[in-house]
Amino acid sequence: MSIYPIMLSQTKFIQRDKLNYPFEERGLQFGDGVYEVIRIYSGNYYLLNEHITRLFRSAEAVKINLPFTKEEISSLLMDLLKENNVTTDAKVYLQATRGSAPRDHVFPLDVAANVYAYVQPLPRNVELLGSGVSTITHRDTRWENCYIKSLNLLPNVLAKQEAKEQGCYEAILHKDGFVTECSASNVYLVKDGAIHTHPIRKNILHGCVRISVEKFANDLKIPFMENGFSIEDIGAADELFLTSSTSEIMPIIQVDGNLVADGKPGNITKQLQTEYERDAHISSAHKMAAE
Amino acid sequence: MSIYPIMLSQTKFIQRDKLNYPFEERGLQFGDGVYEVIRIYSGNYYLLNEHITRLFRSAEAVKINLPFTKEEISSLLMDLLKENNVTTDAKVYLQATRGSAPRDHVFPLDVAANVYAYVQPLPRNVELLGSGVSTITHRDTRWENCYIKSLNLLPNVLAKQEAKEQGCYEAILHKDGFVTECSASNVYLVKDGAIHTHPIRKNILHGCVRISVEKFANDLKIPFMENGFSIEDIGAADELFLTSSTSEIMPIIQVDGNLVADGKPGNITKQLQTEYERDAHISSAHKMAAE
Repeated sequence: MSIYPIMLSQTKFIQRDKLNYPFEERGLQFGDGVYEVIRIYSGNYYLLNEHITRLFRSAEAVKINLPFTKEEISSLLMDLLKENNVTTDAKVYLQATRGSAPRDHVFPLDVAANVYAYVQPLPRNVELLGSGVSTITHRDTRWENCYIKSLNLLPNVLAKQEAKEQGCYEAILHKDGFVTECSASNVYLVKDGAIHTHPIRKNILHGCVRISVEKFANDLKIPFMENGFSIEDIGAADELFLTSSTSEIMPIIQVDGNLVADGKPGNITKQLQTEYERDAHISSAHKMAAE
Repeated sequence: MSIYPIMLSQTKFIQRDKLNYPFEERGLQFGDGVYEVIRIYSGNYYLLNEHITRLFRSAEAVKINLPFTKEEISSLLMDLLKENNVTTDAKVYLQATRGSAPRDHVFPLDVAANVYAYVQPLPRNVELLGSGVSTITHRDTRWENCYIKSLNLLPNVLAKQEAKEQGCYEAILHKDGFVTECSASNVYLVKDGAIHTHPIRKNILHGCVRISVEKFANDLKIPFMENGFSIEDIGAADELFLTSSTSEIMPIIQVDGNLVADGKPGNITKQLQTEYERDAHISSAHKMAAE
């Protein structure tokens, strides 16, 4: 039995084992849906509004009509934590598909979106956040509209699996020599005291933690430059890090077997991690160890 | 109640209403699976071996281990028709996903693939095959590996919906000025007695009906040239047609509101349609009307 057995199905709460996906679920047949993964610390959402804003943006981009307002889904997600008595660190996975109908690429008429959400425990990986991770570089083979957080994740799955098989945590994706993002996170390069990352375009996901990073950088008076960087720039980087709701702000210490700078998490990355812990109200018991 | 209520689930037959997709089905969360749509005429499969060969090629490309040999799935698919007493025109939808496991991009260990298949009636659309269809052109925004028949179909869905909203049947996709294929079919241009189509590359699906078209062209001594064509070439085309298991060999008579040649199905297209009816052993009652 799962620790958190109650989930959101459409706009009702049900026991997880009572869930029965429709036979012709378009999410399953076409990946015709959008999703969010939202982080919870000590029973409280982090960046909930940012995730809900992006959910609506994704749904609008693919013309899925969500069966609730932003306020309503926010309230339902709050209730999901209450129903499950969540007081620890966790994550919510939320998915909205176009609905179910006899298989046809064309949108079905008068079919309501299917929404599913569930919560799962997710302790912080403070060891990895302290040590940093190794990565590979990988060709970005994805479609042009990765700003839509859709269920079409096969290229991401294949890239991350390739990283795993090479003993690494993530794959840094690149197209035409330029770094876009990672398979499930945004990526940043620090050089001469400034943070560089890919500009907000249709070909990358607009990360919620990225919004935090930009805010922290502004607070810390660190230049945040959305001018991108190339694969070659990595060799000369002072620091490299990635961000996502699951990975938080994660130092990258190795790329394709080569150390990033001295192979240790850099100072700017560490300052951003401290800001993250403050901003997300991480309980002192769950903070990274101070050096 | 469905007409054909018995489906294949993994390697067993079950009543359709007994199906319960796993809670964390990777097909639903990542589109992490591959599929085929196979045509049946008068209770007999058309191009079954070609579809099974492609299913295994797609599965291998994404490293999904299918739980059967080609002979075994062929036999199961035969039994699916028998179990449902299928004697009419129909189609089988077959899907194989990587399986179910707690959500993580990385492949789960020791998890078996989930296979689902069901049969549905599908009468031939002889009227449309006789009259031809209208199309739009649409930017090809898809990923680089469309030769894999995967469940990541959101860009295809959006393109076909755009066609539908413009009163059309299909969207002709193009990248860098060149036509790749349609949202759910391959596309061909006839000029000066020769058939032109996109070469077999990773960015298009290698259609089963395309294999038939090449064979028919050879039989009819019509040059079959895999050299592609551009959006501009369409304006000077003598004929245009598309193929898929669902659409068969379908004349295109209009593109973006402009007639193709005289706006009627062309002679080479009609010859290929006749060959198709012969090759697929279409019963005389279901043949297109002779002129």
